[in-house]
Amino acid sequence: MLSLDSIYQSIQEELTKIEENLQSVSEVAFDRLSEMLDYSLKVGGKRIRPILTLLSGRFYDYERDSLLAMAVAVELLHTATLIHDDTIDKSSVRRGRLTVNEVWGEDKAVLLGDYLFAKAGEFCAHTGNLRVITLFSQTLAIISNGELHQAFNAFNLEQTRQQYLQRISSKTASLFVLATEAGAVLSRAPEESVEILSDYGHNLGLAFQIVDDVLDFIGTEEDLGKPVGSDLAQGTLTLPAMLLLKRYPEDNPVQMFFQKQGDPEYNKKQAIELVRDSSVVQECYDIATEYCARACRDLDKLPDIPTRRTLAELADYVIRRNR
Amino acid sequence: MLSLDSIYQSIQEELTKIEENLQSVSEVAFDRLSEMLDYSLKVGGKRIRPILTLLSGRFYDYERDSLLAMAVAVELLHTATLIHDDTIDKSSVRRGRLTVNEVWGEDKAVLLGDYLFAKAGEFCAHTGNLRVITLFSQTLAIISNGELHQAFNAFNLEQTRQQYLQRISSKTASLFVLATEAGAVLSRAPEESVEILSDYGHNLGLAFQIVDDVLDFIGTEEDLGKPVGSDLAQGTLTLPAMLLLKRYPEDNPVQMFFQKQGDPEYNKKQAIELVRDSSVVQECYDIATEYCARACRDLDKLPDIPTRRTLAELADYVIRRNR
Repeated sequence: MLSLDSIYQSIQEELTKIEENLQSVSEVAFDRLSEMLDYSLKVGGKRIRPILTLLSGRFYDYERDSLLAMAVAVELLHTATLIHDDTIDKSSVRRGRLTVNEVWGEDKAVLLGDYLFAKAGEFCAHTGNLRVITLFSQTLAIISNGELHQAFNAFNLEQTRQQYLQRISSKTASLFVLATEAGAVLSRAPEESVEILSDYGHNLGLAFQIVDDVLDFIGTEEDLGKPVGSDLAQGTLTLPAMLLLKRYPEDNPVQMFFQKQGDPEYNKKQAIELVRDSSVVQECYDIATEYCARACRDLDKLPDIPTRRTLAELADYVIRRNR
Repeated sequence: MLSLDSIYQSIQEELTKIEENLQSVSEVAFDRLSEMLDYSLKVGGKRIRPILTLLSGRFYDYERDSLLAMAVAVELLHTATLIHDDTIDKSSVRRGRLTVNEVWGEDKAVLLGDYLFAKAGEFCAHTGNLRVITLFSQTLAIISNGELHQAFNAFNLEQTRQQYLQRISSKTASLFVLATEAGAVLSRAPEESVEILSDYGHNLGLAFQIVDDVLDFIGTEEDLGKPVGSDLAQGTLTLPAMLLLKRYPEDNPVQMFFQKQGDPEYNKKQAIELVRDSSVVQECYDIATEYCARACRDLDKLPDIPTRRTLAELADYVIRRNR
């Protein structure tokens, strides 16, 4: 599998600090809470969002402490939203392990998410930067708004491409924007550069979510760490499903699944197979690649340091990853 | 019923501004979200927490705009926690109306709470005061921690008075502290006065919750706006139930209810009647009154303005209210 190893190596020391900070969040007196935090924060994901903050903060005044605090805030916010998402979706598996709601129950999962929002806010406040603090809260509002759109549109077949993009912009790309824009602001980048890095985050986030939505069809359960076809199961209409509906307007298994006609398991399997065997996958990748190109198009206006290259590599990774 | 009218009159203009600001939160493009926000924020509660911020900010430099922003933040944070509490408890009625989770479902209720945390954070950021912003996030962490303690101790009979006080300090008094301490800090009160107002908030919050816990036994469904005995039903061991267990260690209906022996409805009714007919009620009120006295004991060290008297009246109201 394509890995992030070379990127990790370039910021090894900061990543270690981030893990230490995340670890410190688990060290609370209440042992039941400590256990839940440890479970949620230790076996983590790819840490792409904190990496984005670190990289975006390298072009001007490198404020290591505030960047680290912000990187931790971004990862905690991301973790909190995942925990609430899983609870809402009643998902039982993520990253190959039982979800918090599955292990401790939905009530504890909601409260753990709230606790993590709070800790994220505390780390963000450590930056001492009001612009970044305001952006942090605005981002949580945008994410929740996007998730509400998704929840209200579950099993709704009448959604446009524009609505899909708006939704993934809110629920995913906004957090990428927070990660990159905060890095830029904290390093006192000029406004033009803040905008370039913010746009990079936005477009990379869109590409990331489109690839996520494709992997939900074409990935393996082992790589994904959760069942294939989870989005369909939740009634979330993603780009591959939308393109499939357009291609086969009659007797489409996505339509039948959403309208609860026939055997749901059979329809889901059919939809997955049909996507895999069609050019829908390539079409989605073309769109994601286009967003990655947009993400990178103005990077060369930033100061010429190796990090520019790293950001481009990260965009490449976002497309080519298999999980 | 004893009312807050005279207090409301003294800060009429600011309260109108707060209602306008809360109203503005509902004005979003997404109509489903707008509807949920309007439902949650319009027919509000007593607005005690924002009143505390306004009053606590009157003793030194009166910074109207930042006080108003903070007062709104405190009320939004309070509303968000209520929505999550009701969702977790699967409560169907609050303030005489269906809860958000009952009307829109648990998934939407979780997300609406998240959205309101975010809006609360945005209003708090408007104060531009890093100390207050940090306190805001710390408070949400303390509240969630307290709620987790409560959730993990549901139907647990082995809880000490100390644990009870710790729990209500976290889940209720901490928000009162945020309200008063932020008011003091924003008005640039000297540290000694910040501490006096913070202690006032802490002790008032404890008294408030103890009275709440008594009203859950002795109130009427109409006044409470929810069923009597809700705490018992959730398995939350409150002060009246603890005192009742101590008084009648044998065949206690609280014990039988928690241990699921016999008819739960009968046991709950018995517990309510036993509390109502015993001196437990008076004992709880004595304890709450003691906390109110503690809340007020150092108020005369604050500048001699009419607000000192208002804070004492508010403490009086907290004890004597019937809902």
